[in-house]
Amino acid sequence: MGKKYKTSYSVPFYETDINQQIKLPHLLSLALQVSSQQSLDLGISDDKIFSDYNLVWIVTEYKLDIVRLPHYAEKIEIETEAVAYNKLFCYRDFIIYGEEGEKIVAISSTFVLLDFDSRKAVQVPDGLVAPYESEKIKKVQRGPRFQHLENPTEHLTAVRFFDLDMNGHVNNSKYLEWMYDALEPNFLNQHIPQTVALKYTKEIHQGSTVYSRAELDGLISRHEITTDGIINAQALIEWRKKD
Amino acid sequence: MGKKYKTSYSVPFYETDINQQIKLPHLLSLALQVSSQQSLDLGISDDKIFSDYNLVWIVTEYKLDIVRLPHYAEKIEIETEAVAYNKLFCYRDFIIYGEEGEKIVAISSTFVLLDFDSRKAVQVPDGLVAPYESEKIKKVQRGPRFQHLENPTEHLTAVRFFDLDMNGHVNNSKYLEWMYDALEPNFLNQHIPQTVALKYTKEIHQGSTVYSRAELDGLISRHEITTDGIINAQALIEWRKKD
Repeated sequence: MGKKYKTSYSVPFYETDINQQIKLPHLLSLALQVSSQQSLDLGISDDKIFSDYNLVWIVTEYKLDIVRLPHYAEKIEIETEAVAYNKLFCYRDFIIYGEEGEKIVAISSTFVLLDFDSRKAVQVPDGLVAPYESEKIKKVQRGPRFQHLENPTEHLTAVRFFDLDMNGHVNNSKYLEWMYDALEPNFLNQHIPQTVALKYTKEIHQGSTVYSRAELDGLISRHEITTDGIINAQALIEWRKKD
Repeated sequence: MGKKYKTSYSVPFYETDINQQIKLPHLLSLALQVSSQQSLDLGISDDKIFSDYNLVWIVTEYKLDIVRLPHYAEKIEIETEAVAYNKLFCYRDFIIYGEEGEKIVAISSTFVLLDFDSRKAVQVPDGLVAPYESEKIKKVQRGPRFQHLENPTEHLTAVRFFDLDMNGHVNNSKYLEWMYDALEPNFLNQHIPQTVALKYTKEIHQGSTVYSRAELDGLISRHEITTDGIINAQALIEWRKKD
């Protein structure tokens, strides 16, 4: 059991989608922000590990279970806990509580520490993560295996200037935006996500030609983001029909 | 002189651009959010004017003067004042203060009240805006005249699902994102905006084919966003070279 950290948030208008709910990619950004706040609170801010160790945190996988998404102007609470870590991976959970205090979204995530210059993952230094009081484990938690898409629809996507963040790469949250756009507007207008499994494999830079590929089978969509024939991210989303 | 309202904000990682500064479109969203907070505070929230009058606030113009943009993690203050109004237009200013208390951005904006169903502007009811204590004026404040672009570069843009907000239209802030994308990455990497004049003329819906057209002349860029040959928004941006 790691230390828990909790903060509150009110969903602004400009972060709502057509369903008057929080934009799902924004929820991921928000979760990441809360984990940064916890690090700052514990004296091991992102800035500090960068200046002291030349390291940056990178998310490699997300798994979301969604009862419902926060709605416009809802006052939610976001709780996070760095649950466990092994040699290479750190596992962090987030729980989103609705304004009645009920759990509405559960997110599990996998982080690695990257050397900023080599862009290679480094072994997690015990001392560095000690303040989180996470359990050290041997086991590597495997996410789902994503099957290769056989006959996807393909949606050409241009990287926008504002898709990039201050690292100069496409911000993590944008991949999920692109995945949505490979589905038909009619489908998106009538369905909301129930579970999401999302894996990042390769960063995307300014000027890249990006394809968002998808296969929809009933209420399950499978996604790939590719550049130059290489997979940058994969996802599996289970949808349900809107009430 | 209208009533002033001030709130603070800390710039999160995911709202920074490659210059480690706040994304300019996000600053506009944020300003809008602060004006909504003032309305809520004065008992005339957006929800209330919608349910009581079937009206929504729409921004038609912005003018920005930028000394510098807020940087990552900077604690800024945003002050707003509904300065004046006439029969159809309400004029609202925003000032962004940096963490040393210095003025870093000034924004003037023009709002109209739209009937939600007819999408037509209505006369501003004195009673409705009384709580802001804005001065009633006769004069219509004219923004700059935007000249028609003679020989622009043209950038085809797809409307993303998450470009839409809960009104089902493209969110105002997205037009500016698209305007940036009509300029060369090299130019955007080396320049930052100094003044922006931005005018909205027509809403954009899901499924629209959008062109972002631009002409760059030295440090001045002129922009048009068009759908089906009709102009939806225009802008003029003065840039300066990054330090």
